[in-house]
Amino acid sequence: MPAKLKIAVLGATGYSGLELTRLLLRHPRVEKPVLLRRSTDSGDGKVNLADLFPVLSGNGSYPLQPLSWPSLQEQGIELLFLATPHEASRDLVPEAVGHGIRVIDLSGAWRLKQAQHRAIYGFKDEDSPTAAELTGKAVYGLPELNADKIPAATIVANPGCYATSVILGLAPLLHADIADRAKGIVADSKSGVSGAGKEPTSRTHFVSVADNLSAYGVFTHRHLGEIAEQLNLSTNEITFTPHLLPIPRGILSTIYVHLKHPMQSGQIESCYRDFYKGRRFVRVFQTPKLPEIQFSLNTNYCDLGFCLAPDGQRLVIVSCEDNLMKGAAGQAVQNMNLMNGWPEEEGLL
Amino acid sequence: MPAKLKIAVLGATGYSGLELTRLLLRHPRVEKPVLLRRSTDSGDGKVNLADLFPVLSGNGSYPLQPLSWPSLQEQGIELLFLATPHEASRDLVPEAVGHGIRVIDLSGAWRLKQAQHRAIYGFKDEDSPTAAELTGKAVYGLPELNADKIPAATIVANPGCYATSVILGLAPLLHADIADRAKGIVADSKSGVSGAGKEPTSRTHFVSVADNLSAYGVFTHRHLGEIAEQLNLSTNEITFTPHLLPIPRGILSTIYVHLKHPMQSGQIESCYRDFYKGRRFVRVFQTPKLPEIQFSLNTNYCDLGFCLAPDGQRLVIVSCEDNLMKGAAGQAVQNMNLMNGWPEEEGLL
Amino acid sequence: MPAKLKIAVLGATGYSGLELTRLLLRHPRVEKPVLLRRSTDSGDGKVNLADLFPVLSGNGSYPLQPLSWPSLQEQGIELLFLATPHEASRDLVPEAVGHGIRVIDLSGAWRLKQAQHRAIYGFKDEDSPTAAELTGKAVYGLPELNADKIPAATIVANPGCYATSVILGLAPLLHADIADRAKGIVADSKSGVSGAGKEPTSRTHFVSVADNLSAYGVFTHRHLGEIAEQLNLSTNEITFTPHLLPIPRGILSTIYVHLKHPMQSGQIESCYRDFYKGRRFVRVFQTPKLPEIQFSLNTNYCDLGFCLAPDGQRLVIVSCEDNLMKGAAGQAVQNMNLMNGWPEEEGLL
Amino acid sequence: MPAKLKIAVLGATGYSGLELTRLLLRHPRVEKPVLLRRSTDSGDGKVNLADLFPVLSGNGSYPLQPLSWPSLQEQGIELLFLATPHEASRDLVPEAVGHGIRVIDLSGAWRLKQAQHRAIYGFKDEDSPTAAELTGKAVYGLPELNADKIPAATIVANPGCYATSVILGLAPLLHADIADRAKGIVADSKSGVSGAGKEPTSRTHFVSVADNLSAYGVFTHRHLGEIAEQLNLSTNEITFTPHLLPIPRGILSTIYVHLKHPMQSGQIESCYRDFYKGRRFVRVFQTPKLPEIQFSLNTNYCDLGFCLAPDGQRLVIVSCEDNLMKGAAGQAVQNMNLMNGWPEEEGLL
Repeated sequence: MPAKLKIAVLGATGYSGLELTRLLLRHPRVEKPVLLRRSTDSGDGKVNLADLFPVLSGNGSYPLQPLSWPSLQEQGIELLFLATPHEASRDLVPEAVGHGIRVIDLSGAWRLKQAQHRAIYGFKDEDSPTAAELTGKAVYGLPELNADKIPAATIVANPGCYATSVILGLAPLLHADIADRAKGIVADSKSGVSGAGKEPTSRTHFVSVADNLSAYGVFTHRHLGEIAEQLNLSTNEITFTPHLLPIPRGILSTIYVHLKHPMQSGQIESCYRDFYKGRRFVRVFQTPKLPEIQFSLNTNYCDLGFCLAPDGQRLVIVSCEDNLMKGAAGQAVQNMNLMNGWPEEEGLL
Repeated sequence: MPAKLKIAVLGATGYSGLELTRLLLRHPRVEKPVLLRRSTDSGDGKVNLADLFPVLSGNGSYPLQPLSWPSLQEQGIELLFLATPHEASRDLVPEAVGHGIRVIDLSGAWRLKQAQHRAIYGFKDEDSPTAAELTGKAVYGLPELNADKIPAATIVANPGCYATSVILGLAPLLHADIADRAKGIVADSKSGVSGAGKEPTSRTHFVSVADNLSAYGVFTHRHLGEIAEQLNLSTNEITFTPHLLPIPRGILSTIYVHLKHPMQSGQIESCYRDFYKGRRFVRVFQTPKLPEIQFSLNTNYCDLGFCLAPDGQRLVIVSCEDNLMKGAAGQAVQNMNLMNGWPEEEGLL
Repeated sequence: MPAKLKIAVLGATGYSGLELTRLLLRHPRVEKPVLLRRSTDSGDGKVNLADLFPVLSGNGSYPLQPLSWPSLQEQGIELLFLATPHEASRDLVPEAVGHGIRVIDLSGAWRLKQAQHRAIYGFKDEDSPTAAELTGKAVYGLPELNADKIPAATIVANPGCYATSVILGLAPLLHADIADRAKGIVADSKSGVSGAGKEPTSRTHFVSVADNLSAYGVFTHRHLGEIAEQLNLSTNEITFTPHLLPIPRGILSTIYVHLKHPMQSGQIESCYRDFYKGRRFVRVFQTPKLPEIQFSLNTNYCDLGFCLAPDGQRLVIVSCEDNLMKGAAGQAVQNMNLMNGWPEEEGLL
Repeated sequence: MPAKLKIAVLGATGYSGLELTRLLLRHPRVEKPVLLRRSTDSGDGKVNLADLFPVLSGNGSYPLQPLSWPSLQEQGIELLFLATPHEASRDLVPEAVGHGIRVIDLSGAWRLKQAQHRAIYGFKDEDSPTAAELTGKAVYGLPELNADKIPAATIVANPGCYATSVILGLAPLLHADIADRAKGIVADSKSGVSGAGKEPTSRTHFVSVADNLSAYGVFTHRHLGEIAEQLNLSTNEITFTPHLLPIPRGILSTIYVHLKHPMQSGQIESCYRDFYKGRRFVRVFQTPKLPEIQFSLNTNYCDLGFCLAPDGQRLVIVSCEDNLMKGAAGQAVQNMNLMNGWPEEEGLL
C-alpha cells in the first residue's frame, strides 16, 4: 500500500471546513489532516476542534496549529485545503504555491478568468502580477466539466455551491446547443442557511429565517460570474435569483430554458444521460420523477430531473445538492481524488 | 346602526375555513357565523369547533349544524361561504343560488370561464346546464382586478392562493403592455404546507417536509388556468412551477419577465403604483427592498417588489402573501365587504 | 367617550417591544403610542419603525423620537412602557417616576424584592437609595395573582416569560397547600427563540437552533428568583430548567409536583378552576386534554392542563403561552388595562 | 478473511428500517442484506427500495423479496432484523427461532419480562406458550448494561429510543445507589417526529408539528415499562413524560434526581465515567458543558452531561441521542457486532 497523502486544512472552524475535515478524517488515502489556524484567528494554539464542535468528541483530539509555511514543509504537507474568506485565499494561495504545495481553495478567489467578474470580489490584476498569473493557471474544479484539467492542476478553485447546481443543470443543454439563449435562461435557486456562513447576523438569526423565505442578490450575486463563464453565457443571457430557505443545508435550483425546436422528453433524458455518462456524482432522474433536497443531503450527488412543457419547447430542470457536500467539501474531496489519480468516489460514498 | 349580515360557513374544519371563521367572528358587520357541516362529514351535530381547535376555546361554543337549505332560509342567512372541495362546491353553489343565497366559494369550482381549464377539474358542461350557466355568471373575486363586478355578484369565485400572488405580480405589466410575452414569463412559486390541505399524507408528513424543498405540478397545476385567464395569456406564454416549503403558511412567487424595451426602475415602480392606486391590500415596495414571506404573514396584504437587470430589459418581481389570508380567507372577507358596499378593509386590519 | 390615554414605548425595535407596539396601535382606549429611542441607540430621529419592520408598512409612519422627559411631559404622556435591557430600566424608571409618569417595565429590573435574587442582575441596593425604595413599591404585574395591587401601582414590573408559565401552573396547588414541597418541584420549560432576544449570536444562528434542542441556565436562570418569590418557595424547593426550542415563539412548561395525599383528577381540576375563576386569560383544560404551544400562539392566554399518576400522588402540569404575548407584551397591555380600570381583555381578543 | 455474515431485514421501508439498511450496506463484515417484505404489504416482489427512497439511488438495486422461511434458510441467512410493528414481531420471532435464525427485533415485542408491562402491548402469556418461553430467553439489547448476555443471545430485543436515553442517563446513579428514590425521579423527554413512525396522521402533519411542542402519553407511554425494568424501579418511582419536537430526529431527555447525600460535581462525573469506562458509545460531558441534540445526530453516541444544584442534592442530567441511531438502527448494529464477537463499533463510526 502506498504512503498516505499528507494534507492540511485551513478554516476547519467554518461550516464547509468542518464538513471537509470530517470527510478527510475518514478518507482511506490521506493521513489525519493537519488543522491550521491563521495568526489573526482568536484563541491560542491549543484549541481543539472537538471543543468547538462537540459532535467530534470521543475520537481523540484535533488541535489547531498556527499556519507556518516552514512547518508545513517540514511536515511534508503536499496538499492544502483553504476554507477561508476569498481575501485570505487570494493572499495565501501564491504563498502555498511558492512553497511547492498544491491547493484546493473553497473560496471564490480563483474561480474567475474574466476581469469583469473578478472585479465583483474587488480583485484588481494590477495589484498583484503573481495573482494575475496564477489566476490563469487555476483550474475550475467541477469534475463533471473539467476532469481532464484537474489531475495536473496546482490550484483547484472549488466551485460555488449555487454555481455547481446551476452549471450541472444546464451544461448538457448548452453543450448540445439545443437551448434558445435568445429567450433567456432563468435559474431560480433556493439554499439552506449554512450557505450564508457561520457569522451571526440579523439575517441568519433563527427568528429571521424560520417561517420565512426571501430572495436576495438578484442580478448581483457573485456566483453569476462563475455560471456565465463556465457555460459561455453572457450575464444578459441568464437571470439568477438566490433565495434563503428555512433549512440548515441543501440547494434546489429550478431552471427554465426555451428550446430551439420542439423536442420529446426521451430526447432530453438522453441528452443528460449521455453528457453525464460515467460521472459518478450526477444522478439523472427518470421523468416525471423530480429531485428533492432531502434526496441528496449528506451525499456528494447532484440530482437532476426535468419536465418538458406540452409544447415541447419549454424545459424546467430541477437540480438538487447538499451545499456543504457537492456544493463545497464533498466536491473538494472529489477534486483531491482526481488530482491524485484515485477513484473519483474514494471516501465519498 | 344597520342590522348585521347573517352568514354561514361550510368547511370551517379546514385550514382556510378555520381562518375564515376566525376573521368573521371579529368582523364588526356580521353576526356570529352559522357553522355548517355536510351530512357526509363524520361526527354528529353536537360537534363544537373549539373541541377540534383548542385555540378557539374560552370564548363560548361553536356548534356545527348540518347543512339544510330550509334551515338556512329560516335563519335568514344571506351569504354562504364554501370552504369545501371543488366537487362539493360544484354541487352546492347551484342549490344555494336556487335558495336565494349569495355565495363566496373558496374552491376552484367556479373560477374558470374556459372549458379547457375547467376540464382539469373534471367538470364537463354537458353534465349540468345549470352549472354551465352559473359558470358564466360567477365573478372571479380578485378585488384589485374586478372591484367593479364583485359588488353585484351572486357567486364570487375566490381566487387560488398561488394565482393571487402571480396575477397581482404581473397585472400592471401586462395591462401597460410592456412585457415581451414572446420570450415567455416564468412564475416560480413557493408555498407553505397549509396550502396542501389538512389531509395527512406521506407528502405532508413532517419528516417529508422538514429540511426539504420540492417542486411539483410543473406545467399541470390547476392554478395555471386561472392565471392565464385573468391575465389573458396562453398557457404557452407562462411557465408556472409551485414548490412546497418547510413552513406552515405563506407564499413567495418569483416572477421573471422580459420587457419589450429597456426601462428604468422608476418607470416600473410608477407602473405598479399607478395600477394599484387606491387598492388597500397591495403594498408596492420601493426598490431595492424586496418583500419576504414574514412581512405579510397574518395580514391580508400582497406585497410586491422588483429588481430590474442592468440591461433594463429583464425584470424580476417578488410577490408575497399569506396563503390563508390574501390567498384564501382574507380575500374572501374582502370580497364580502365589496359585495355589501362596506369599506374594503373592514375586519381585516 | 373619555379622552384616550397618552402613552409612550421605549424599545419598540425588540421582539417584545414590537409586539407591544402592534397591540397598542389597535387598542381602542389609547392614542397612537409615542415611540422612543435612547440617545445611545444608533440611527437618527427620522428612523421609521416601518422601515425596520416592513410588516408594519402601509399604515402610515412610525417615527422614533429621542427620549426626553420634558418632551414627554409636554406631550402629556401618562404611561411609559419600557422594553429595554434591565440595566437601562434600572436607570430610567426612577426618572420616569420623578417626572410623574407611571411605568410598565418589561425587563427584570423591578421584579424582585429579595436582595439575593436581585444580586443575579448585579443590582446592589447601596448603589442607589432611590432604586432601593422604588423596588419596594414596584408591583409584580401578574394579574392572576396581584389584580388587587396593580390598579394603584406606579411601577408595574411585567413578569418574565418563563416565570409567568411556571407561576400560573403552580399557584393553585401551592395556594391550596396540597403540594408536597419536601419532595421538590420540577419545572422543565421550553421556549422559542424570540425569548433569547434579537441580538444575533452564535447561539441564535439558524443553523445552531434548527434540528436541535438544548438546555441552558440550569440552576442559574434569572427567572428562578421570580418564581420562588411569587410562590413563596425556597430555590432549593424548585428546580427550573429552560430549553431552547427550534421555533420562533411559544413556551411550554412541564411541571412535576408530588401531592401530600392521594387525590382524584376531578379534585385537581376544581382546584385550578376555582383559583382562576373569573380570570379571563387562563384556560384550564379538561383532563386528559393537554395544551400545546400552537393553541396559545398569538393570544394572551396561558393554557393549563394536567395528568395525575395512577397512584394519585404525582401530578404533571403542562403550561403553555406565547412568550411575546402573555409572557411579555400581552401581559403588559393586560396590566395597563388594570392600571386604568378598563376591562382586563380590552384590546387583547 | 472470514466469510461475511448473511443477514436479512424485514421492515426496511420504515424510518428505522431504512436507517438500519443504510448502516448494513456499508458494514464491512456482512453481505448486502436481503430485504424482505411481508405478504400483507402492498406492492409486488419487484419493488425496489431505491424507488421508495431516491436517496438510495445510483448504487444498484435493492429488491424487496417476500418473506419465506425456506428461502431464507436456502440463502443461508443467519441473522434477521425485524423493524416491524410489535404485533408482527410477536408472531415472527418464534418462527425465525424455529428455523434456526437469530433475531434482532427493533419493536417492543420482546423487551419486557414483567407481565404487567407486557400487558400494555396487549400480550397475554396464556395466548402463546412459545412466546412466553421465548420472552424469558430474549436479551434486552442495551450493550452498556448487558454486554455479557448479548453475545450468546438468540433473540435480542433492541431497546426503545426514549428508554435508551433515560436508562443510560440514570444507570450509573442507581448502580452506585446514590439516588434518593423516595423523592421520585423525573424523566422529561423530547423526541423528533421520526420516532412517531412513518404513518401519516393528523398528529404528524407538518402543520401540526411545526412551530409547536406537545406532551403526550404522560404516565402511559410504553417505554416506561422498559425503563422501570432495566433500572429496577417501580413505576411509582419514576415519572416519564415524552414530548413531540418540531425536528425530524433526535432525543433529549432532561432527568431530575435527588441525591441521598450532598455531593460534589467531581464525584458525579467520576460515577459516570467509571460506569461507562470502555463503553465506546457513551460520551460523558465535562460539566458545565451539556449535550445538545445536534451533537449526536447521525452518530451512535448517547451523550450525557449534568448540573448539580448549589445544595449538592439535586442533579439534572441531560441525555441526547439520535433516535434512529443509538435509539434504534445504530444500536441494532452494535448488538449485531456483539452477537458475532466483532468490535462493538464496527460499521458505526
